[in-house]
Order: sequence, then C-alpha cells, then structure tokens
Amino acid sequence: MDPIKINGVMRAWGLAKIIVSKKKGFNEGDLVYGLVGFSEFVITNGTGLNKIEVPSGDDIVDVLGVLGLNGLTAYAGLFDVAHGIKKGDRVVGSGAAGATDSIVGQIAKTQGVHIVGIAGSNEKHDVLLNEFNFNVALNYKKDTFKQDFIVATNDGIGIYWDNVGGEILELALEQASNFPNIINWGCIAEYNKSEAPIGIRNYFHIVTKRLTLRGFICSDHYKIFGEARKELSAWLASGQLKAKSAVLTGRMEKAPEALAALF
Amino acid sequence: MDPIKINGVMRAWGLAKIIVSKKKGFNEGDLVYGLVGFSEFVITNGTGLNKIEVPSGDDIVDVLGVLGLNGLTAYAGLFDVAHGIKKGDRVVGSGAAGATDSIVGQIAKTQGVHIVGIAGSNEKHDVLLNEFNFNVALNYKKDTFKQDFIVATNDGIGIYWDNVGGEILELALEQASNFPNIINWGCIAEYNKSEAPIGIRNYFHIVTKRLTLRGFICSDHYKIFGEARKELSAWLASGQLKAKSAVLTGRMEKAPEALAALF
Repeated sequence: MDPIKINGVMRAWGLAKIIVSKKKGFNEGDLVYGLVGFSEFVITNGTGLNKIEVPSGDDIVDVLGVLGLNGLTAYAGLFDVAHGIKKGDRVVGSGAAGATDSIVGQIAKTQGVHIVGIAGSNEKHDVLLNEFNFNVALNYKKDTFKQDFIVATNDGIGIYWDNVGGEILELALEQASNFPNIINWGCIAEYNKSEAPIGIRNYFHIVTKRLTLRGFICSDHYKIFGEARKELSAWLASGQLKAKSAVLTGRMEKAPEALAALF
Repeated sequence: MDPIKINGVMRAWGLAKIIVSKKKGFNEGDLVYGLVGFSEFVITNGTGLNKIEVPSGDDIVDVLGVLGLNGLTAYAGLFDVAHGIKKGDRVVGSGAAGATDSIVGQIAKTQGVHIVGIAGSNEKHDVLLNEFNFNVALNYKKDTFKQDFIVATNDGIGIYWDNVGGEILELALEQASNFPNIINWGCIAEYNKSEAPIGIRNYFHIVTKRLTLRGFICSDHYKIFGEARKELSAWLASGQLKAKSAVLTGRMEKAPEALAALF
C-alpha cells in the first residue's frame, strides 16, 4: 500500500449512501461499503464498492464494525487463516478487549471452546467476562500474571491470537499444545511501535510443537466475506455475538479525533 | 519425546537386517528402516519398522541419507509444510551446506527456480555451486554479506528454509516477497543453542507480507514418504540430486563419535 500523500485524502473504510448514479447496479439511496476515505462526498467509478443491506434487526453501525472490517477480520483469521476451531481447543487473545479481538473470542465461544482474554483493566475484564462470556480474563499488569497465565492455559493453547509479541508470546509458546496456530493480523495499533523487538527465546518450540505462525490482511480473504457476514449476522441475532462500537458524532472535522483514539 | 535415560540405548534411526523373524511379513535377510537405536542387535516386535528396498542403482547408504530422514525432511518441508514451489519462487537456505538443507536446494532446483544458499566457507560454496547447482552461494562471515544478500534476493524470497534465526531471518523478512513461507525443521544442531534469542525487530512484515512460518517434524508427514522416496530416487537416478554422505566405518564404539560430529 502506498503512503498517503501530504494533503491527500485519508484512507478509510466507510459506509456511504449514493446520491446520484450513472452506473448500472448502483441506484440513488443504495448503501455501499468500501474505501471511501475521510470525505463527506466522493465521486467514484464504483470500483471496490460493495452494495450493503443492513440485516433486519442489525444496527447500521454494525456494518462498519462487527459485520465490517472487525468482524470479517476475526472470522477470516479463525476460519481461513488458522486451522479453524477444533473441539477442545483453548483460544487465547493477547489484546482481547480490542474491537476485533473481542469478536474473535466471541466467535470462538460459539464453537464451544474455552476462551482466555488478556486485558489491562477491571472495566475491560468486566466486559469480557459478563458481556462477551469469556471464560477467563487475565491482567498483564498484575504481578501474578505469569502464574495466572500458566494456570489458565494448563490444558494447552490451540489458537493464540496475537498483536503483542514479546514475553507474552513466549509464554504462549511455552503453554501451547502441539500444532498450535499463532495468528497475527493487520493491527494498525502496532504500526507505530513496529521497532519494538520481540525476542522468541524459546524458539525451539516452533519446531517441537510444530507451530504455524501466520500474518494476514483481511482483504485477501474476500472470498469468504459473504459466508462470514451471514454467520456473524446470525450470531448477532441470537445474542451469541455482542457488538460494542465507539460512536463519535459530528462532521468530517471529527474524523482525525476518531483516528487518534485508536492508538 | 521423552529424554533418553542414563545408560539407556541412544535413540537413532537406522537400517537393520533381519537375522531371524517370527513375525509375518518380515523375513530373514529383509532390510528394515526405523528407530533401531545405537545397537548391534535389537529384539523388537516390529512396530515402527518399515521394510526397505534399495532402489536399483542407489547406494545402500542413500537409504539413511538422501532417501532417509534428510531427503524425507527436505521433501516434506517443501511440499507438505511449505506451499510447494511456485514458478518464479526464490528459495533461500540459511544453512545450505547441511545434509538436509543441501537436498532442499537441489529439490527446489529440479522445479526450475532460483536457489540462494548461505554457508561459511569457500569449500562449501564450491560444493553448493559446482556439485549441487545452486545459483548463488553467500558467506555470512563476509563484511559484505548484508549487501550480497540484498543483491541476491532482489527479486524477493518465496521460501526461506531456516535453522538459524536472528539477523539473517530479519534480513530474509525484509527481502521476502508477499506470502512467503519460512520453514523451520527439527534441527538437532539448534538444540544446544536453544537459549539464543532471535529478535524479529521487523515484526510488522509478518502481517504486511502475510508471512507463514511453520515448524515441523518429519515423522508427522509419513503419509507422503512413499511418494517422496519415489521422487527422490528418480532425481538421484537422473543426476539432478546428488548425495553426499559422511561415512564412519567401524563397530558401535564409533557411534558416539558420529553423533558428536553433527555439532
């Protein structure tokens, strides 16, 4: 991806409503999802835009979050990048309270497996345990974290959903079952700290446990988006999946503030 | 795998000839391959032993090397662990002159791709270039190594066959194409230095380049051993694959010396 030029339009996925169209298949009033950028109005030939129907009962905001990039990333990561969720797998997320990561845990939970989430505050733990039905929430800031992690993953780790690396990744490798999957996704929050070294000192586990570590970018997996949206929507409807969105109301002047809030 | 007990029999794959058999399917004079250990004689119920025919034209020693664990590991790693070899892939090996790694390069070469091998002496380079037909041999001990590596991998890296980690792995990530495969195999030479940290400071490439890093142990891939032996044997016969074995002649007293020579 090319860097955005100075004074260029900030790249962003978004939902737009068609005001006027000369293109077949796109009509006034249609909702479209795509890389519309930080713009109030866009003139486009329609390339890369997908028509969206908000599933009945769903909030329009969900199309941007749980049914949008966050939900699609979670779904693609678990079912198209990782080996899928196998009976008895333990799924551990290193930044579990994040917008995508919390969906990963909830999706895994629909498959009846044990979910351990790591997050840095009691408020986040409350959400993970009481709203998202995680089995265990761990706080990486606590002195007892290492011991807590070992106890919580005593039966192994099948999938480790990571955007942290470092010592927690090492600990995860230590506790991993054989044939574990470690999944890294396109985490923009990491870009600004990309120089931080991760040192996998227990490197030999990569071989002895037959690790698969994969990085992925959601958009490569567009072929399963249809299936993913259908499943996500059904889980939303049944209450197995809960959406939490941060909504900032205002015009385009507010957009930089929303971007900064990600970091 | 359990550690070997003090005074226990050293675990080792080997070729044995049956002297006497009460088991159906195993007859006097049959050659069998399996975990026979450091023993001159073994009494066994036959579990895990496979009858072996030395392909006509092949040396019996090849059954232990290029048609044995080394060749099977190379074949399984490229075709069952990595994505296979795609047209235009560049294949780079970090310890290319090793028994298994040199087979990896030669197998990749049969698929018509560009092979870069890293090794630490002129003698090894001579073998890689003139006997094994690698395209480029690089010396990690040279001051110009980094620049040499960048030039040699200017068109990207599709498969990086690694048992080194560290800075060369970082460099490989830097030079990798999109969707690269990094393959780590059961490298006993690494076990004694397992505490050495690898720091992947350019961690973000895992995501942006959609890396797949996999560790594997050859024996998990036994289902393709039949196909692998057939292919390896054909490449040996055609001269596309050359076997180099270190043969130490003597009785069992010599075995510890052979083991130590691996390190």
